[in-house]
Amino acid sequence: MARGGLCRAVGVFRLCRTSWTRFYSQTEPEPLTLRQQSGGIRRITLNNPRKRNALSLSMLESLRENLLTDVDSDDLRVIIISGPVFSSGHDLKELTSTQGRDHHTQVFHTCAEVMTLIQDIPVPVIAMVNGVATAAGCQLVASCDVAVATQKSTFATPGVNVGLFCSTPAVAIGRAVPRKVAMEMLLTGTPISAHDALLHGLISKVVPEEQLEEETMAIARRVCQASRPVVALGKATFQRQMAQGRDAAYATASKVMVDNLALRDGQEGIRAFIEKRKPVWSHKVDKAHD
Amino acid sequence: MARGGLCRAVGVFRLCRTSWTRFYSQTEPEPLTLRQQSGGIRRITLNNPRKRNALSLSMLESLRENLLTDVDSDDLRVIIISGPVFSSGHDLKELTSTQGRDHHTQVFHTCAEVMTLIQDIPVPVIAMVNGVATAAGCQLVASCDVAVATQKSTFATPGVNVGLFCSTPAVAIGRAVPRKVAMEMLLTGTPISAHDALLHGLISKVVPEEQLEEETMAIARRVCQASRPVVALGKATFQRQMAQGRDAAYATASKVMVDNLALRDGQEGIRAFIEKRKPVWSHKVDKAHD
Amino acid sequence: MARGGLCRAVGVFRLCRTSWTRFYSQTEPEPLTLRQQSGGIRRITLNNPRKRNALSLSMLESLRENLLTDVDSDDLRVIIISGPVFSSGHDLKELTSTQGRDHHTQVFHTCAEVMTLIQDIPVPVIAMVNGVATAAGCQLVASCDVAVATQKSTFATPGVNVGLFCSTPAVAIGRAVPRKVAMEMLLTGTPISAHDALLHGLISKVVPEEQLEEETMAIARRVCQASRPVVALGKATFQRQMAQGRDAAYATASKVMVDNLALRDGQEGIRAFIEKRKPVWSHKVDKAHD
Repeated sequence: MARGGLCRAVGVFRLCRTSWTRFYSQTEPEPLTLRQQSGGIRRITLNNPRKRNALSLSMLESLRENLLTDVDSDDLRVIIISGPVFSSGHDLKELTSTQGRDHHTQVFHTCAEVMTLIQDIPVPVIAMVNGVATAAGCQLVASCDVAVATQKSTFATPGVNVGLFCSTPAVAIGRAVPRKVAMEMLLTGTPISAHDALLHGLISKVVPEEQLEEETMAIARRVCQASRPVVALGKATFQRQMAQGRDAAYATASKVMVDNLALRDGQEGIRAFIEKRKPVWSHKVDKAHD
Repeated sequence: MARGGLCRAVGVFRLCRTSWTRFYSQTEPEPLTLRQQSGGIRRITLNNPRKRNALSLSMLESLRENLLTDVDSDDLRVIIISGPVFSSGHDLKELTSTQGRDHHTQVFHTCAEVMTLIQDIPVPVIAMVNGVATAAGCQLVASCDVAVATQKSTFATPGVNVGLFCSTPAVAIGRAVPRKVAMEMLLTGTPISAHDALLHGLISKVVPEEQLEEETMAIARRVCQASRPVVALGKATFQRQMAQGRDAAYATASKVMVDNLALRDGQEGIRAFIEKRKPVWSHKVDKAHD
Repeated sequence: MARGGLCRAVGVFRLCRTSWTRFYSQTEPEPLTLRQQSGGIRRITLNNPRKRNALSLSMLESLRENLLTDVDSDDLRVIIISGPVFSSGHDLKELTSTQGRDHHTQVFHTCAEVMTLIQDIPVPVIAMVNGVATAAGCQLVASCDVAVATQKSTFATPGVNVGLFCSTPAVAIGRAVPRKVAMEMLLTGTPISAHDALLHGLISKVVPEEQLEEETMAIARRVCQASRPVVALGKATFQRQMAQGRDAAYATASKVMVDNLALRDGQEGIRAFIEKRKPVWSHKVDKAHD
């Protein structure tokens, strides 16, 4: 069944007729994530449905690799992360005492690195969820810039039930939803519905299953219509100013607006608007000459 | 059509039979904003519907003037900002390379000044929206203390489409709504409905068009029933403590409560409550004598 | 009527057949709060319905005592705060000028102490609301980790109407709901419904009156099924990391995850999960030996 889900997803990719980049871990014969890119849109598929896409250390490293590869290339404009089931969080077998404290440290270090990377790379990252987003899987959704989910999807931080409170997922989730929503999820482990996740800001959109691909791709294509350096500057500035007090945030953002206007694409966009024509982006970070 | 909207609004004002204060810019023959005050309620109307109330430098200066005039007078208790269309954001003609970096800097500096002024002046500011609140227009709504909007109103940060990411609007909007809501608005430029704006905390109330005036005035009148120095202290304290950590915030607010009680109107309110009568406010900032 | 409400609540407690601990203030013949504990669940009932459970200094001290008593005992896992009416906030008779500045200071100091205590003690605290939560009563709800309320319950910060702006309640409420929701509540004093309180994150769940006990107890029992030190570590970490910037928060939380895994119950939970059996918690804070 889960395998069927994967095959179906792969089927969709095949229609794109592009080559696959596969990331093989040292221990798994199957690629843990699949990467495909077309028309500026990179799709990363979590590819371990047998383990419900557990975010093992290898899976996290594979995800990191797929996020970072050619991330500064003009050809990349947006990333979609998806997977059959979506993701059940950390692989608990990696967290036994047999593995030892150093291994545990490495797992959480790598996890935090991937989650912050999603917010810090210059292109927007969209989570496309059809299934469960649990613990670190829920953290992954909370860390993405945009998240689209099917009506049947659920979101949970059930670590407390297995004696491992979801304290790292809480970093991302606590910054995405109201505190009481986060605390109830964390303390009880009870899943919330896609509807409630939308209500509280954990995800951006809920769609019927048959529209998930279409709606997610529509958002991705809209991002692709924008100038890459303009989006990159905007995304980075949002993260930066949100960490500051209001007045410092305005100082930061006001300077960025002026810098944005000095970009070649900044001036092209405004000229195109005034001349009532479609802008032609250079996608280059150099400044306007006029 | 937009002109008709303005005339209707002006018609409403005429009923109040008060004189208008008009702010003429150096370049425009028409006043860019209209100011009228009655019964403690100041109404500022954005008055450039031909340009969809673009927040040009002149418009921002006019708005600042209307916010600051006699702001410390006991006669002023609350400000309502409205306008036909509401506002489409910055005037892009002021942001071409021809205008130059210094001019751009001045525009964003003045814009941030007006937006923070709304939060920092001693009286509450209410946005009354019937139309579109776009880019800096959306920032204006996010910056007000309260916002009432009609069902048909929409809210958007579409700068990304013209190569100018809405980074300064994001300062206010990112502090008003959940992060994912803000990011999707910023990255896609897609407008959100009044219903979604309410759901996510960008506005305070949605009403049918025919009730907009009535509902907004009801809130304004309720603010007018309170003691001016009590409201001023409360508003300032909210901004101050929200920028602090929890324990520092409690230290700040606890001291303010004691100071509030020492105000003449603080004691009058409590005495009136105990004596089961309506309080009679002095609206003075001096301390109680007893 | 309110008295009847109390008797009913007491009736429920009697079914538990446990002894009552009563806190008598110096001035009141009746205990201001009732404390009862059974199966890890402590119930604190505000017990001054004649005064609509005003949070007088004595009431706050009684509440503090009931929160702190044996708070480090393994037998305590979760606290429920409830009361007929719930609570109408500070006792205004304590805030007259006759009482004097030092007394006012003590009231707000003690209030802030109780509210932050709720967030800082090692067990989760649930507010169970059936009635009104007003001013400091609303602050109490906002300060709890979880809040369940009946459909008819309302939430308000009406201090502005009696000349005392709810600046200390605003510390908790402003950190629980979107800013514009908080500001409208504070500036107008208008109550919001349980439905709106849920929508904006002030409470966790709305239920019909006849299900209030059952639903609240279900959440409490779910918390009791978890390991006490795991919950304590998770709750403390949430408060700590939310006060930090994102990267510092991840550093804090990642280290905590590793420490959590080193707990005896951390390893027991993961072993039980892998062995597909129910975990047996020690509830001890010592480290795993293997």
